Parts: sequence; structure tokens; C-alpha cells
Amino acid sequence: MKMLRPWPTKVSRPLADYRVFTVRSDLKTSPRTGNEHDFFVIDCVNWVNVIALTPDDKMVMVEQYRHGSNTIELEIPGGMMDGGEGPLETGCRELREETGYVGENPLVIGQNYPNPAIMTNTCFTLCVRNCACTHATELDPGEDIATRLIPLAQIPELVANGTILHSLVIVALYQFNLWRKP
Amino acid sequence: MKMLRPWPTKVSRPLADYRVFTVRSDLKTSPRTGNEHDFFVIDCVNWVNVIALTPDDKMVMVEQYRHGSNTIELEIPGGMMDGGEGPLETGCRELREETGYVGENPLVIGQNYPNPAIMTNTCFTLCVRNCACTHATELDPGEDIATRLIPLAQIPELVANGTILHSLVIVALYQFNLWRKP
Repeated sequence: MKMLRPWPTKVSRPLADYRVFTVRSDLKTSPRTGNEHDFFVIDCVNWVNVIALTPDDKMVMVEQYRHGSNTIELEIPGGMMDGGEGPLETGCRELREETGYVGENPLVIGQNYPNPAIMTNTCFTLCVRNCACTHATELDPGEDIATRLIPLAQIPELVANGTILHSLVIVALYQFNLWRKP
Repeated sequence: MKMLRPWPTKVSRPLADYRVFTVRSDLKTSPRTGNEHDFFVIDCVNWVNVIALTPDDKMVMVEQYRHGSNTIELEIPGGMMDGGEGPLETGCRELREETGYVGENPLVIGQNYPNPAIMTNTCFTLCVRNCACTHATELDPGEDIATRLIPLAQIPELVANGTILHSLVIVALYQFNLWRKP
């Protein structure tokens, strides 16, 4: 069986800072051929997405306009891990800021690489139960978000029929399905 | 119910070309506040990921070193849509180049936005059946890939236990599960 090895980095060169991500160029040596190749890498902090459940089996979802795709997407709450925060803190903070909901027993139920080919970061999936709306939302000036309560039983159909399109949301929903039905 | 609207773009300014993606800055107007904000956007061509099945219920997977995460990942074959290609052509080409496998009846079974917050592109999920290894692999100099045949029944456990971590691969596997068990 063919075994693969990591490519050692010879030189890493920062190129640009775009606020929510930076770009660098890494010169690496192929362990297979010994030749050098350069690769562009997008550096990001880690992200958290939150499966937030109410006592009556609904999921707290958010609808928001997205500047990359130029579309309005049905998603779950989430965001970037600010300096020093762990995944539980980030997830509970983003849930509260984006929807006003607060819950109990936050638990990391999965993680993934958003794009290991060109991005460095990890995305965590958090599950929070017994959620209730107890706060006002606190949106950033660049955000415009509406809360939607969706019955749990409807979610797989919303993935299958293409209503939910954000890859990291689909990943969180699959990890949640596998976690609750082991 | 609060309804969201897209943000009109006032000025779009190209910033840098990094070969497999470009970065631009979009100045947009919030339809909620009327204020202007600028957003960095990563422009990419579309991607395709391939669920390739053998007649004995195995999935043709690939193991490869990834330069963003600096890890070796278990994934499915896939790649970028080259100029003029449709998703079926790209998927069948990448499957053949990366693994040497060729199959029948390619079908797009899903699509997603890899990251609608900051990326513009779409990723398609292709399913190809009756696959057999009939060609030699053709790897790019920057690639180093090993084929792995994984029994279909093992795949959900490999997602649940964190062996499979590439978000777009996890999305394709969930879309495949939902498509085959409607």
C-alpha cells in the first residue's frame, strides 16, 4: 500500500492581510520527486457552528445575506473564534448575539477542515440543548440576520432539496445526525 | 416575519491573483441601515467532488497530503472545473486522473456553496457507478495521491469518528446518503 508523507516547508512568506483572512506563499519540497513547488495558503482563525435545539424539537436557524455567494442563505448560527476564546464560548456567544437564544450543556460534537487544500483552519460543531430566547440580538454593522425556528424532522429534506447550501452547515447537520443516532 | 434583502454592490475592485483564486474588495450598501461597508471576497472557479462506486459496494477514495491543513486526508476524488468543462466532464476527468478509475452514468446529485460568506463559487457532487480501474493515474507535479477502496458500510463511522475531515467530502457523503435513501 502506497504511503504518503507530508511536504516539508522550506520558506513561508506572508503576502497580504484581508482582515478576516491573510494569504501567504509556502515553498515546499515534494517527498516523492524532491522538486520544489510554491503553494498559496489562506490563513484564518478557527470557526464554530452551532446546532441549537429548543425543548419542542426545533432547531434555531438564521437566514442571512452572504457577500461571497451574493445570496440569502438558511444557516445555523456561528462565527469566528475571537482571541483567547474556546469553541464553547464562541458558539454560545454567537448563538446569543445572532438570535438572542441561550441554552444548556454546550458540547463539541464534531470538527472539520473547511478547505484543507488551501485553508489552514478548523471548524467546530457545537450542540446546545434547551434553548430559549432570553436576550436581544446584537448584530455587527455588516450583518443582517433573521431567526427561523425549523422543526428537526424537516431538516434532512431541506438539505436534500437544496434549500440549505452552506457546506459547513450541511457538515454540522450530518455530524449531528450521526451523533444522536449512533 | 423579518425579510432580508441582498446588498447592492457600489464598487468592485480586484486586489490580487493567487493562481487558484483571486481576491477582490466589494463596497456594498446595507439595505437595513443605508450605510456602506467593504467586504473582501475570494473568487474561485467551481469545484466537483465525486462519489465513485464499484460493483462490490466500495467507494473509490483518495488519500493525499493537503497544503492548507498540513495533514494527510482521506477524501473522495475531485477538482476544479477547467475552462469550458461542465460538472460531469470535470468529475469523470478528475476520477480518472487521480485514481485511474472510470465508471458509468455520471449524475449530479447535489451542490453547495463551499463558503458563501467569503467565497463566490459552487461545489457540485457527482455520483458515478460501476467503476473499474482501467487507466494509469496522471498526477500533477504538486499532487501525491494514493487510492483507497473503502466499503460503503464503513463510511458513516469514518465521518462520525473524525477520520474524514474535509468539509466538502463530508457534504458529498451526506448528499449521497440522502439521495440513495429518499
